[in-house]
Amino acid sequence: MSGDAPVDEEGFRLRGAALLRSAANDLKRDDAAAADDLGVSVADFAAYAEGRRAVPAELVRRAAAVWPVNEGDLLPWRDDCPDGVAIHRLADSIASSRVLTRGGIDYYEYRDTAMSRVAAFRPEWIKMLSVVDNDDPAHPGVRWNKGHLLYQFTYFVGPVNYYVREPEGDRVLRMNTGDSVWGLPYSPHTFTSRSADEEAYILALTYGGELVGDPQRELAALGAPTAAHFARPPGGLAFPAILRDFLNALALPADRLAVLSGLPEQHVAGLLAGAVPPTPEEIERLASALRVSPRDLMPIDADVVGSIRYCPADAAREWHYPSSPQAAYRIRELAGSSLHPHTRALEIIPLADAGSSSFSSSLRTYQHQYVYNVSSAAADLTWRFQGRSHRDRLGPGDSAYLKPFVEVAFASGRPGECRLLSLRIGGRVTPETRTALGTIYPGSLTRYLRENGRWY
Amino acid sequence: MSGDAPVDEEGFRLRGAALLRSAANDLKRDDAAAADDLGVSVADFAAYAEGRRAVPAELVRRAAAVWPVNEGDLLPWRDDCPDGVAIHRLADSIASSRVLTRGGIDYYEYRDTAMSRVAAFRPEWIKMLSVVDNDDPAHPGVRWNKGHLLYQFTYFVGPVNYYVREPEGDRVLRMNTGDSVWGLPYSPHTFTSRSADEEAYILALTYGGELVGDPQRELAALGAPTAAHFARPPGGLAFPAILRDFLNALALPADRLAVLSGLPEQHVAGLLAGAVPPTPEEIERLASALRVSPRDLMPIDADVVGSIRYCPADAAREWHYPSSPQAAYRIRELAGSSLHPHTRALEIIPLADAGSSSFSSSLRTYQHQYVYNVSSAAADLTWRFQGRSHRDRLGPGDSAYLKPFVEVAFASGRPGECRLLSLRIGGRVTPETRTALGTIYPGSLTRYLRENGRWY
Repeated sequence: MSGDAPVDEEGFRLRGAALLRSAANDLKRDDAAAADDLGVSVADFAAYAEGRRAVPAELVRRAAAVWPVNEGDLLPWRDDCPDGVAIHRLADSIASSRVLTRGGIDYYEYRDTAMSRVAAFRPEWIKMLSVVDNDDPAHPGVRWNKGHLLYQFTYFVGPVNYYVREPEGDRVLRMNTGDSVWGLPYSPHTFTSRSADEEAYILALTYGGELVGDPQRELAALGAPTAAHFARPPGGLAFPAILRDFLNALALPADRLAVLSGLPEQHVAGLLAGAVPPTPEEIERLASALRVSPRDLMPIDADVVGSIRYCPADAAREWHYPSSPQAAYRIRELAGSSLHPHTRALEIIPLADAGSSSFSSSLRTYQHQYVYNVSSAAADLTWRFQGRSHRDRLGPGDSAYLKPFVEVAFASGRPGECRLLSLRIGGRVTPETRTALGTIYPGSLTRYLRENGRWY
Repeated sequence: MSGDAPVDEEGFRLRGAALLRSAANDLKRDDAAAADDLGVSVADFAAYAEGRRAVPAELVRRAAAVWPVNEGDLLPWRDDCPDGVAIHRLADSIASSRVLTRGGIDYYEYRDTAMSRVAAFRPEWIKMLSVVDNDDPAHPGVRWNKGHLLYQFTYFVGPVNYYVREPEGDRVLRMNTGDSVWGLPYSPHTFTSRSADEEAYILALTYGGELVGDPQRELAALGAPTAAHFARPPGGLAFPAILRDFLNALALPADRLAVLSGLPEQHVAGLLAGAVPPTPEEIERLASALRVSPRDLMPIDADVVGSIRYCPADAAREWHYPSSPQAAYRIRELAGSSLHPHTRALEIIPLADAGSSSFSSSLRTYQHQYVYNVSSAAADLTWRFQGRSHRDRLGPGDSAYLKPFVEVAFASGRPGECRLLSLRIGGRVTPETRTALGTIYPGSLTRYLRENGRWY
């Protein structure tokens, strides 16, 4: 873990000033009214709202008491990755090593790898210390966890047994290097080694998705009974619930929807009962009647088997990028799910020699990216962020966090032998937020990111 | 504004404890390791993580320094609406009255109405104090604002002129009672009165959508150049960008997508160039090849004219609910946009006599709801929340906030004369979060809302 010093103090102060200004703006409080509400002088309020002085914790507390805001509304994030890429070295990883026991036996060796305050990755390198001599999930060497909130993508190295508890019973999968699995929150699981001699470890890349942050805070404040009402199944089963929700939102009777959409009343009743699935054309008509986009009526499809998606190494889809014959990388697609369309796990195998690394074959994505060098060959990386170019090296066991839209190129002195595990996840910026950014009044982005004045 | 006392102190403490426990869990820190990181004793850490003692501000600061978390990650929301409905009285609204000047003249009288810490509503009653004698947007009585971050639904009462500044020029709309408009963030706008004698006011219901909270904090930390990359247009123009993003996420060449989807290479190139729109069947094939849901490839449609949607009172769609002849309400649909499918503005006109109010004709939605009585007739409301029933009254000028899934029935001693303005908005719980709630391991909701132990 890093030291005690506050990170990005100036940026934090300036963004905090903007959040204070925004809160006052949203409540239509000018400086005098805001200062009066908060019990500070107008000069002090101005110093805070202009970022000349850091907003004190006591002011945040006071604002949450007298204004209809929450403490967190006034607290920005910290940027600990000013160059766009943060590299975590194997040596630091080893230094973070700790052994976790379960039921009195040494069970795992844990090591931290790259993380950032601007991304939801919580990745660990984990070595299995418990060796089993069969695949029985009831083996005394198998110690289960209770499952956790974070989603987990797992990459396997060596002879690892993976166990997952489903409502229908326990499953065991015999994993080997290159196998991978993607798992849903809270499903209990565990790992052991099948060999005392061979190295057996995993990259347990846990990450927060749409369940953490604001949604969790909102649902926790609303309480369990209300939260339970929000749950919705994936896939076709969801359609009647989605349609019913829009009817409730509009206080619109089903027979009236039939009139507005031009569909027979009986058919609308059948759709609402889940007796028939809608055709694309019916979705268009219903969406038009409800004044929503067709996508808003369509469910999120599930492709999990139980609570996981499993991708054996030899079943991974692969291709070259850019297209052969000038390919710079071999890409292998690892486990993932349609439940998380913005999560992608890849093996990236540089085919270019280190000397030839250039941006002509760079990779760039809207996602946050985590990279771990799972091979014994080093990778050279070159990246461009906010107009500046950088160069570094990812040795075996090194890992890195990359911000969205960083342009990065990988190469290796041993082309074809270096293997980089890349997990890419969406952040809190959803397609809805992206579309909103594209529809706000032209030229407003700067104010959105750092409001510094009254709008009225 | 409310007093100085902290709101919901116990719930806040318990939810804060759960967030501290979750942060330690996510980082795979047991009590001893977490206490060591945070510089407190194991007993103190346990007291905080079990909710016996409130997490102090200094501990939050320390966690954000030594762990890759942000201060806000440890701060829950406060629940200021334990009964499911919070009523704001006209008298309190009048007591909050203040006059805002613009350019040296009294311009608006502002009054607060119902708000809650669990919802993003920032609604104001605003009376126009500047009277104009023509519709010229350059009239000296017209003083513009700079536009603001929040979305705004506006309901008009009396002879109000509404002005909105578009890149193409200024527009003026002559509004009257029952007209409404929905507007995008940051478009400059203003309001005047056309009459010194008649009452002229608006309900300016501003609210935060997908732009505020976590996305804004993340984008502010990532910085302006990165934030700009995220912007995406609405409608059909978005499709090539959406498809390109998925290709980048997978490092998948277009010709390879053609093979995987079974579409001709030329056609995929045309789709990516925006030369042709995809058919529903092509979307299915592409989604299947990319292992996403068809909805994830589909854009959010825009229906705004410039930066607004305008709904004149006489163009509002209306119906009875439930269906005639036993209708309990007349419903009128006010301004809204497909850009915000989870926002709905309605006029609700109770048709049932106060004595007959019952849950047989109740309304219930997944949205947060704001209600303002815009008529001179009182409404009786009966509601059910978490198994308990309540009863109250909304007099003229009273307003209320209702939590999601509250079951509410309105009636009036003057059926047909009482008019309630209802604005319903989605919160931070998106369809993605709802589906995630429906797919987590069965029985995990309690832990999701209040984790209180180690998971491993």
